[in-house]
Amino acid sequence: MEPKIIRNKEEMRNWSRSMRAQGKTIGFVPTMGYLHQGHLSLIAEAQKHTQLIVVSIYVNPGQFAVNEDLSTYPSDFQGDIEKLKSIPKGVDVVFNPQNLYDYGDERGQPDVKMRQKDGEIVSCLEDDGRGIGHETWIRVEKLEKGMCGKSRPVFFRGVATVVAKLFNVIEPDVAVFGKKDYQQWRIIQRMVRDLDFAVKVIGSELMREEDGLAMSSRNVHLSPQERKQALSISRSLFEAKSAARKGKIICSELRKSVTESIEASGGKIDYVEIVDQESLETVDEIKNGVVMCVAAWFGKVRLLDNMEIDIS
Amino acid sequence: MEPKIIRNKEEMRNWSRSMRAQGKTIGFVPTMGYLHQGHLSLIAEAQKHTQLIVVSIYVNPGQFAVNEDLSTYPSDFQGDIEKLKSIPKGVDVVFNPQNLYDYGDERGQPDVKMRQKDGEIVSCLEDDGRGIGHETWIRVEKLEKGMCGKSRPVFFRGVATVVAKLFNVIEPDVAVFGKKDYQQWRIIQRMVRDLDFAVKVIGSELMREEDGLAMSSRNVHLSPQERKQALSISRSLFEAKSAARKGKIICSELRKSVTESIEASGGKIDYVEIVDQESLETVDEIKNGVVMCVAAWFGKVRLLDNMEIDIS
Repeated sequence: MEPKIIRNKEEMRNWSRSMRAQGKTIGFVPTMGYLHQGHLSLIAEAQKHTQLIVVSIYVNPGQFAVNEDLSTYPSDFQGDIEKLKSIPKGVDVVFNPQNLYDYGDERGQPDVKMRQKDGEIVSCLEDDGRGIGHETWIRVEKLEKGMCGKSRPVFFRGVATVVAKLFNVIEPDVAVFGKKDYQQWRIIQRMVRDLDFAVKVIGSELMREEDGLAMSSRNVHLSPQERKQALSISRSLFEAKSAARKGKIICSELRKSVTESIEASGGKIDYVEIVDQESLETVDEIKNGVVMCVAAWFGKVRLLDNMEIDIS
Repeated sequence: MEPKIIRNKEEMRNWSRSMRAQGKTIGFVPTMGYLHQGHLSLIAEAQKHTQLIVVSIYVNPGQFAVNEDLSTYPSDFQGDIEKLKSIPKGVDVVFNPQNLYDYGDERGQPDVKMRQKDGEIVSCLEDDGRGIGHETWIRVEKLEKGMCGKSRPVFFRGVATVVAKLFNVIEPDVAVFGKKDYQQWRIIQRMVRDLDFAVKVIGSELMREEDGLAMSSRNVHLSPQERKQALSISRSLFEAKSAARKGKIICSELRKSVTESIEASGGKIDYVEIVDQESLETVDEIKNGVVMCVAAWFGKVRLLDNMEIDIS
């Protein structure tokens, strides 16, 4: 099925409202494009819940800091459309806006230099003025602090904000997020609860390549050697889970094994954490309802992976 | 007309959706109750734009700091209902939730003490745990900084957040805010633009008592003497506007006159500012599209007033 491609916010909302007026339910899968099997699994999950499916393809400058990889983020719009056409039952709409932050108003250009002087970190959106005067940001103040929030201080602010915008434009009944980005998924759930969005958020399982590597659009930037080395992440996570189940429940020890294993393969650790699945607070001993989360660099690529652990 | 009183979020949203499904448009006037003629003028404004009217009555703990007047904020629910019944065409729904931040979840209780240790300012919501685990806040980063933002650092964060919640629950087509709270009105406009809310925001003119005092629920706390002294605010604003039109366009001089006049009457100035009507940035000389804003204390009551000035 050929999806309808919509690039304009107004047209997008009008489509959703006309469908809702016909009693149809709408599922939404936000993506930054360069789709892989992981994305397609999110779409399949959404199809279980709603009659219609909207997929957004938008690389959001608001979630990249100026020193991050916005400019090299992979993209292949035509390839994405081909992939979407091939999936069973298909996708109804691809929402692919040019710039979600263009309000057609030159007045309120943010004073980026002034903020940078304060030592604050600024996103690509604010840096290049593409979001003309955009200054509203959603903060999920507690969940955003740990893990990825430490090394990417603008990231979750940018994600929560763009997701709220997309919810307001698309007005979906259900939205599906990948548990690959575990902290992001929990932050969106919390935001939806705290701001009373009328959207049901569903977390969809992390997908792995056959050799265990967590699927990610960024994997394309790994050299063949890095690709092999990066398998140490998933391998060490599986080992930690298995060790935990066998009674090795001291988190500091489990984290140490995973860290050493990844470093021995040439990876550079951003973090290895074992946290409560909901509060994302660190735990000292494995108990039910925890998740082990890893971020590590291989070459210029930062990879995420995680594993939920239940021991009963 | 007797308004329908709804206290539950789900029921509120269901009402709105069923009305929308019938093709009806919904206007929304958020209030903290203790209604006066100013509120009724907002409702009259809303009635010009939509077929149905929802008025919310909710004193939002998220916008009060712990040292502010949440506990003494005046309330008279039955009196409010009587006033609403008396207005022409009436109001369809009064949305009066018990606690907008109760998510029925004990887990995520915010760690207020930890935050206070950091020297951050905490709202009443976070202080007493009434918002169980609520941690998502909307910041309009530039507009929130000046004027009321300086002396009430949690205020606009709380206002933007509760308005977003109310929008998501009520799903109005139009929302009316009083220009009495000028900065608040501009912040809500900006938030709606930046987050793509499908709500048209309308600013409604400030209403004055016959003697010139800007209408406010807090006026009830003024002693008869303070009430008289407080007239210096509006009087000095009218004088400044008149002086500006006669060519006295140096803002520092106009601000000085207003400040002296209020202080001579026993008021304590929080701020006297002349700012651009949209960006709320201070201006040095009067030009078209500026507004003079005042916050001043008389006794224990903090009063706001403002005057838009155009000189052509």
